[in-house]
Amino acid sequence: MFTSIKTPRVYDQVIEQIKSKIKSGEIKKGDKLPSEREMAELLSVSRTSVREAIKALEVIGLIESRQGAGNYIRTNFNNSLFEPLSVMFMLQESSLEEMYDLRKTLELECARLAAENIKDAEIEHLSAILDRMYESLTEEQSLELDIKFHYVIAKASRNVLLINILEVISQLMDEFIKTSRMQILHEGKNREKLLSTHENIVKALKLNDKEKVSEAMYEHFDLIWKAYGY
Amino acid sequence: MFTSIKTPRVYDQVIEQIKSKIKSGEIKKGDKLPSEREMAELLSVSRTSVREAIKALEVIGLIESRQGAGNYIRTNFNNSLFEPLSVMFMLQESSLEEMYDLRKTLELECARLAAENIKDAEIEHLSAILDRMYESLTEEQSLELDIKFHYVIAKASRNVLLINILEVISQLMDEFIKTSRMQILHEGKNREKLLSTHENIVKALKLNDKEKVSEAMYEHFDLIWKAYGY
Repeated sequence: MFTSIKTPRVYDQVIEQIKSKIKSGEIKKGDKLPSEREMAELLSVSRTSVREAIKALEVIGLIESRQGAGNYIRTNFNNSLFEPLSVMFMLQESSLEEMYDLRKTLELECARLAAENIKDAEIEHLSAILDRMYESLTEEQSLELDIKFHYVIAKASRNVLLINILEVISQLMDEFIKTSRMQILHEGKNREKLLSTHENIVKALKLNDKEKVSEAMYEHFDLIWKAYGY
Repeated sequence: MFTSIKTPRVYDQVIEQIKSKIKSGEIKKGDKLPSEREMAELLSVSRTSVREAIKALEVIGLIESRQGAGNYIRTNFNNSLFEPLSVMFMLQESSLEEMYDLRKTLELECARLAAENIKDAEIEHLSAILDRMYESLTEEQSLELDIKFHYVIAKASRNVLLINILEVISQLMDEFIKTSRMQILHEGKNREKLLSTHENIVKALKLNDKEKVSEAMYEHFDLIWKAYGY
């Protein structure tokens, strides 16, 4: 049997060239790319192929095309992970439990690393958020503060890769859990328990106690899962 | 000041339509998409816009374009995560330590879940791989078996999302660590220690003991990190 011969696509080669320049450090985040015309000349390919490559890199969130100003390498890459991960999640019919499990794992590790690396100013920031959570009058406001709280901890882990992936998973999970369901956590008895687990996390972080932070975060996730009715 | 008005791009709208059909379950993995001409008619857009959208989805690894046979939704999505993650890793100048830490976290969780979910046949498979590792004559062969060993454990976690992300991170890490460095693990004293940590993992899995599995996997990663000279 003959099998069809796969000709390498020109736009794929353009993408490879851009990627190898990133790998070598020649192109950095925030950099402006040469114009499409210039790139076509430099690479000896058609402008159409360059445009196709740029469009694809725009879709994966690597390049930002500013109208009239040219193409730039993005400085924030959450989109580039979010798109494929969310589609993958949908196509594989992953369960919310799988996602919850992954998120819990990543948040626990962030919390452990944060216990070592967190600065006083960040602990103060967490305390301030917590105070506002106690005072918050609407579930909506409380939920927003909750997200901020976890983000401060994630950032204190100092592992950019971990932070990025956690952010994408959290965003994805929040998209799949209806807001109404998330608000359950911010009502009545759950609200009290939620505030106390957050309080425990801050206390343990203050002590730089890895194990205690880990335990407090674990309790927190346990509460969430039960509140959601699992 | 005036700010430029952002017109939604047509190909972005095509991508959104495909994504929403995936979300609703109308399009499933392995499915063939309508031809570019048909899609252009259905969506009332130009064929160029459809082609741009398809190309972009091909780059992120969601669609596979088979020459002469049309466009299909992929059944395997590792590529769709690998590309953006690897570029993100390069652009953010993440350290190998960050990656190692993420991988360790995910492998530990896989091992814990595997302790609960692993089947006898899988344990036998692990034992067989381990036997072959003892017998292996080259570092190359040993390394290959090692990768298989970890893959069987990851699969036994039954969390597809976790497996996918771990696979991408492992692949990425292996690309950044030179093979010569990985082989250090499979030489002399390290080889003995490596075999014994693998042995401990299998034993703990047999007992379905979450904590023991977790400990054995932790030891394993500790060994790797030290062998790499950190």
